Amino acid sequence: MKLSEIARKLSCRMEAERDVEITGIAGIEEAGPGDLTFVSNRKYIQHIRHTRASAIILGPDVPAVAVPSLRTPNPYLAFAHALELFHTPVEPERGIHSTAVIAADATLGPDASVGPFTVIGSGCRLGARATLYPHVILYPGVTIGDDAVLHAGVIVRELCEIGHRVIIQNGSIIGCDGFGFAPVGDGTYYKIRQTGRVIIEDDVEIGANTTIDRAAVGDTRIRRGAKLDNLVQIGHGSQVGENTVLAAQVGLAGSTRLGRNVQAGGQAGFAGHQEVGDGAIITAQSGVHGEIAAGAVLSGSPGFDNALWRRTVIALPKLPEMQRRIRALENELERLRGVLQRNKVE
Amino acid sequence: MKLSEIARKLSCRMEAERDVEITGIAGIEEAGPGDLTFVSNRKYIQHIRHTRASAIILGPDVPAVAVPSLRTPNPYLAFAHALELFHTPVEPERGIHSTAVIAADATLGPDASVGPFTVIGSGCRLGARATLYPHVILYPGVTIGDDAVLHAGVIVRELCEIGHRVIIQNGSIIGCDGFGFAPVGDGTYYKIRQTGRVIIEDDVEIGANTTIDRAAVGDTRIRRGAKLDNLVQIGHGSQVGENTVLAAQVGLAGSTRLGRNVQAGGQAGFAGHQEVGDGAIITAQSGVHGEIAAGAVLSGSPGFDNALWRRTVIALPKLPEMQRRIRALENELERLRGVLQRNKVE
Amino acid sequence: MKLSEIARKLSCRMEAERDVEITGIAGIEEAGPGDLTFVSNRKYIQHIRHTRASAIILGPDVPAVAVPSLRTPNPYLAFAHALELFHTPVEPERGIHSTAVIAADATLGPDASVGPFTVIGSGCRLGARATLYPHVILYPGVTIGDDAVLHAGVIVRELCEIGHRVIIQNGSIIGCDGFGFAPVGDGTYYKIRQTGRVIIEDDVEIGANTTIDRAAVGDTRIRRGAKLDNLVQIGHGSQVGENTVLAAQVGLAGSTRLGRNVQAGGQAGFAGHQEVGDGAIITAQSGVHGEIAAGAVLSGSPGFDNALWRRTVIALPKLPEMQRRIRALENELERLRGVLQRNKVE
Repeated sequence: MKLSEIARKLSCRMEAERDVEITGIAGIEEAGPGDLTFVSNRKYIQHIRHTRASAIILGPDVPAVAVPSLRTPNPYLAFAHALELFHTPVEPERGIHSTAVIAADATLGPDASVGPFTVIGSGCRLGARATLYPHVILYPGVTIGDDAVLHAGVIVRELCEIGHRVIIQNGSIIGCDGFGFAPVGDGTYYKIRQTGRVIIEDDVEIGANTTIDRAAVGDTRIRRGAKLDNLVQIGHGSQVGENTVLAAQVGLAGSTRLGRNVQAGGQAGFAGHQEVGDGAIITAQSGVHGEIAAGAVLSGSPGFDNALWRRTVIALPKLPEMQRRIRALENELERLRGVLQRNKVE
Repeated sequence: MKLSEIARKLSCRMEAERDVEITGIAGIEEAGPGDLTFVSNRKYIQHIRHTRASAIILGPDVPAVAVPSLRTPNPYLAFAHALELFHTPVEPERGIHSTAVIAADATLGPDASVGPFTVIGSGCRLGARATLYPHVILYPGVTIGDDAVLHAGVIVRELCEIGHRVIIQNGSIIGCDGFGFAPVGDGTYYKIRQTGRVIIEDDVEIGANTTIDRAAVGDTRIRRGAKLDNLVQIGHGSQVGENTVLAAQVGLAGSTRLGRNVQAGGQAGFAGHQEVGDGAIITAQSGVHGEIAAGAVLSGSPGFDNALWRRTVIALPKLPEMQRRIRALENELERLRGVLQRNKVE
Repeated sequence: MKLSEIARKLSCRMEAERDVEITGIAGIEEAGPGDLTFVSNRKYIQHIRHTRASAIILGPDVPAVAVPSLRTPNPYLAFAHALELFHTPVEPERGIHSTAVIAADATLGPDASVGPFTVIGSGCRLGARATLYPHVILYPGVTIGDDAVLHAGVIVRELCEIGHRVIIQNGSIIGCDGFGFAPVGDGTYYKIRQTGRVIIEDDVEIGANTTIDRAAVGDTRIRRGAKLDNLVQIGHGSQVGENTVLAAQVGLAGSTRLGRNVQAGGQAGFAGHQEVGDGAIITAQSGVHGEIAAGAVLSGSPGFDNALWRRTVIALPKLPEMQRRIRALENELERLRGVLQRNKVE
């Protein structure tokens, strides 16, 4: 495909002395002749000089380059669209596979697709064009929205609701029992029945092997557009706000309420029973508890203001040296006191 | 159901001017007319004034309130029982599903239930009323106790034993190979056959997508009444004590031995080859190694005494300021030395 | 089996006054009469005196002991071989199970084995003697090498390649979509199609419930001989070097490149877009970002030199005390200044 045609389809401005033929998309370091690449992360601008790509997608603030380029306000988004011009996804065979076990009273929307060995419980409802890959399991009473895609091995527990266009990667568990046990008093625990549902709103994507708990009472809710990575734990009764992004291995203890557009880095943890304001950022491996203001950026475990934390972690390895300096100060001060006493000043 | 009847069934004392009709159970913030709610976490006592619930379960130490209430020494446990009065769980269809693949020499106890596509290997034994949801896989030689419940997608590897009344949430793996490799000397590793079993004793509950490794030799054991949350890792040859509670994403390296009633918060880690005494508490995200005394409360990574840790993490963000103060002290002391020398005192 | 015969088979030197009959293998603390045990971890040398084992495998640097022993340069490796003399693994029934759903154009090598309910997509190729346990799912276009073993519940996504002799424990997901979303500008995200493959090279072992992401462009690659434990997260486009070892719950963000023989302890995290040199060691729960030199040993979050970190974490609990000492120094210096001023020295 000609670069000019790509420019047109992606609504980019072409900056090139002559048109070039593009045959694929690649990362800036791996790209070769025929490839279109992109730079969005500023860290990679240095690679532009060395790229062997035939063309490059650039943001508005990058200086003009020798390589034919496509200008756009959002190069990462343009890259996403460019990929779709060159890549045909591997789609599952559609239809209702003969081996699926589907309850007689389940209802399937038009063109819903159900893979081999998938199990659909009593009273489940699938939206139009919903796709259940092989080995998906829906417990009774589950609702799946239009155009939702549940990859192989996804399990949705009883009565949970999955919205439209939701994508769930493999092996994730939606609606497993919350971790609720009442201490009986003799050291043992009594299991609390978990009667709440998990609601996954529209346009959410959930990664692989992630677990989202149902609560004893009330719903656990992942709001519209939120993105959860792999191996994430969402505790019972938690709420994840619209367009909030949780990286891999993040954990939310029970009754955590995240606002909109919150971001949590990998392996971050939330202690639960807390509100986190819109747009807050919790960096990787940090752990936070209590109320968190909108827009706060927190780091560390327990987390505090990121700017202060950055200075703190630079100072941290000086701690043994600081101990020595305090000891030296104490000794010197002791010596001076002696000098003053010998001189009858003190 | 009348509140007075609930009081009777739950052995609570009713404190109310008149009886009220209860139609459901809800959290204190979500409850509305007709709902019974509860307060056990002291944090929520402040919400009592604003609740719209028709009645509330209270502990002995909460002052009398305007809302009709049920008094009990253990409000959380009473709440658990109240839930069971109002909620009928979604139960799987019982019976042996025609699609299950069951080895000819496997034995199933009376009223055992086996879901679609479940695979039961040679020599397996299921107890009375054991429930295997769809897509459970038992490798050969597995024993499942009476009234045990294995949710969809649980896999139990060869020769492992699951006790009576054990509940395993979806996708957990019991008895996968321990991470044992002998360095050969040329940089590569030789896999050590993992011949041990995993033993899950009675009344244990295990969360979703948790992994429990078998060891090269000897058993990995989860003792009676222990509760493990989601995405927990139990390394080869570890032992989890009776009624010990491990929150989500906790990791135990190999040969960790936890005593009774130990508690570990989310994402805590144990370095392995260590004994942890009864009742020890390891707070969230902490990491501990070596012997840990009974009743110790440890925090941080590496963990130390929680009371000291609390003071330490309050001091931590002062570290850059402390550096400046030490520098200022050094400068001032240097200046004083100069003053003293100029005054011939020193 | 006589100890002398074991010595011959394992190429060890026997040190014993008389031959003994060995009937099993056990850990040094659990071993009893008839058992052969071993000591490789120096921590366990103290247990030799008390062992009830009939014989013991020892390294060259352990003093001679009363118990009959086998000397070898690599006792852990000899132990691994000894286990194989006494333990017969539980092997799955071989053959193509009648319930498996295998695409008509998939090709299976000689003696490949496919368990119940396994699904093999279009165009997949299985090597000779490859073993797919029950409930394995191969999306279309997957290649599996000779003698590879995929345990029950493993899912390999479209077009991924699994090398020879690879072992994957239960429930792991190979090739799920990378966590790639382009911010649209209104707070929402646009999913970036993940077109790359995951390549698992020969002799890799992957634990249970681990997730390995495919990238938008380019391959995610686990190089020959690497060992990944359970619940590990490998982000999109990352590369894990030859014979690199990642303990349980480790996380690699996208575009992390680990060299050869890197070691990461449990729950360690890599921030992504970074190179980690050969032989680097990242200790448990540490978090690292940026370039890391070959052979570096890093600890902490964020990580720094392990030797300095060890001194730092010893100093850390002194922080509240250091604050008090700084305050005392400031007060004392203030007092001295007053003394000097009153004495007209200053």
